[in-house]
Amino acid sequence: MIFINKKDMQGIDQRIIQQAVENAYRSMLTKDYNMPDRMHVADRENMLLLMPCFSKQFFVTKLVSVFPGAYQYGKPSVNGVVVLNDNMSGQPLAIMDGAALTAQRTGAVGGVAVKMLTKQNIETAGIIGVGVQGFEQARYLLFNRRIKTLYIYTRKADAARDMGDRLVKEFKGFEYIICDQPEQLVEQSEVVIAATTSANPVFEVPAKQIYGKTFISIGSFRPDMQEFPNLVIKSCDAVFVDTLFACKESGDIANPLKQGIVNQKMIRVFADLLDNGYQVEKQTIFFKSVGMALFDLAVAIAIYQLSTNQNNGAQKIGQQVNF
Amino acid sequence: MIFINKKDMQGIDQRIIQQAVENAYRSMLTKDYNMPDRMHVADRENMLLLMPCFSKQFFVTKLVSVFPGAYQYGKPSVNGVVVLNDNMSGQPLAIMDGAALTAQRTGAVGGVAVKMLTKQNIETAGIIGVGVQGFEQARYLLFNRRIKTLYIYTRKADAARDMGDRLVKEFKGFEYIICDQPEQLVEQSEVVIAATTSANPVFEVPAKQIYGKTFISIGSFRPDMQEFPNLVIKSCDAVFVDTLFACKESGDIANPLKQGIVNQKMIRVFADLLDNGYQVEKQTIFFKSVGMALFDLAVAIAIYQLSTNQNNGAQKIGQQVNF
Repeated sequence: MIFINKKDMQGIDQRIIQQAVENAYRSMLTKDYNMPDRMHVADRENMLLLMPCFSKQFFVTKLVSVFPGAYQYGKPSVNGVVVLNDNMSGQPLAIMDGAALTAQRTGAVGGVAVKMLTKQNIETAGIIGVGVQGFEQARYLLFNRRIKTLYIYTRKADAARDMGDRLVKEFKGFEYIICDQPEQLVEQSEVVIAATTSANPVFEVPAKQIYGKTFISIGSFRPDMQEFPNLVIKSCDAVFVDTLFACKESGDIANPLKQGIVNQKMIRVFADLLDNGYQVEKQTIFFKSVGMALFDLAVAIAIYQLSTNQNNGAQKIGQQVNF
Repeated sequence: MIFINKKDMQGIDQRIIQQAVENAYRSMLTKDYNMPDRMHVADRENMLLLMPCFSKQFFVTKLVSVFPGAYQYGKPSVNGVVVLNDNMSGQPLAIMDGAALTAQRTGAVGGVAVKMLTKQNIETAGIIGVGVQGFEQARYLLFNRRIKTLYIYTRKADAARDMGDRLVKEFKGFEYIICDQPEQLVEQSEVVIAATTSANPVFEVPAKQIYGKTFISIGSFRPDMQEFPNLVIKSCDAVFVDTLFACKESGDIANPLKQGIVNQKMIRVFADLLDNGYQVEKQTIFFKSVGMALFDLAVAIAIYQLSTNQNNGAQKIGQQVNF
């Protein structure tokens, strides 16, 4: 049994994670997986999500706990454990830090969206939100595009500066600018990525500042959350989701649908892009991710395979434990 | 994060496990826990069970995989991982071998039943089935009663002998006898414990060989399984179950109920015995366990507490890993 912690996870090459996410999308096309609906268990004000997913060779179960009051104990509110099993013999193979795996795979979901849904030569981008996901979205954006100026907005300028500094250490050739207002960020950016838990749209701009841009929503994982104003989706030439569950699970899709601002037919599954891509020139594009266990499965497999090849690689991943 | 493997688990004092099971029963009376229905996920011919349970201070999630074809790979068909979290901050605290934990706690469920539902001075006992649970039932029986002769029945005499030899190494002062027929075992034993996956009753005896004895059914976890003939439950003065789910989940209770052989009112929850006990003299008693996550929670807490006190104890439990 291999044990893979947060530090192991953070040291993994972004290419490997992003390739795994692309593999997950590809298996959506071939449908060679079994992903039961995720299960929600409530206890007091807390929530436990159980997310299993099976491929032919492996299966994964992700346990995610959401404890809004964890900050009182100086702990993160979201925790997770990922258990990877062999799907032929049933044996458990690896235990992984679920929060760290989720952070990486969600970053890579944004990364693949940037790769497929923005022009190769974009030079400006904006990140709204500087939590774990704001940071990972920025990392995978910078991994995929040669951004010259990264705009960052959050209510707390200190946290934004801290994130910018961490990014500058890892990626070269760009500068970051902290925006006082999110509208300034949207105005300047060719791609706008939001990773917030906001209940209400985080900016308000005229349509002309929306046209021709790509908007990526990573937060808003519940129907009562919405990051982008309805005008974004209304102005779009194309709307993509990682999974059609987004139509129910996220206010960014559910609200415009309910209000008749966008038609269900217009909402397309991202995986359908894989073979032929999307002609992004002069297009206004919206991508919404709510995530799914299939991503966790693909990334867990890639990490596990990395850990078992560790002897002949430079990178040492994971700790062997006797189960 | 503490990692507790099979070997750690097997080294734990039986008193600690059995006390934890009694604690679980006690919390059934005070109802200070939250145990959602277990979830079943099917994949091909395999099954994944997800069993969460919350107390005020901790929560546990047990993942159990049942792979009937695992023997083809030389692996056990049932595997499990138990994740214990803090229920105030949500942090994961420990990962435990779920199969080993299940083996111990189920053994102890039988042990507590022996303790409460047999006379203190019984000297004979029979175990039907020599799988992991046959062995653990025998261990917890011998822990609770000074048995002089242990009768063992299974279709494969070699396996029975192997189990008997292992028990003799651990417990003193008893002999074991391998029975050719289960009827011989029932005839000789004051308590009969079955731990099989049999679809049909494993013996047939006249009522006079049932009266005044205690029958404990540990197998038959599905409605299409039944270990004891209907005559046992029909002859009983009292029927106890670990949880009322047994009335649906196990053929040993569901079938006699359906056929009107026993009345629902006669089926009592074992926890109700805790305070006043049960007068076992000259009584015929049936106990059926189907298990529940509450037992796993109580045992996982006890083991975790043991692991965190390891420095000032003689017994070293678990391996610290950086999560």
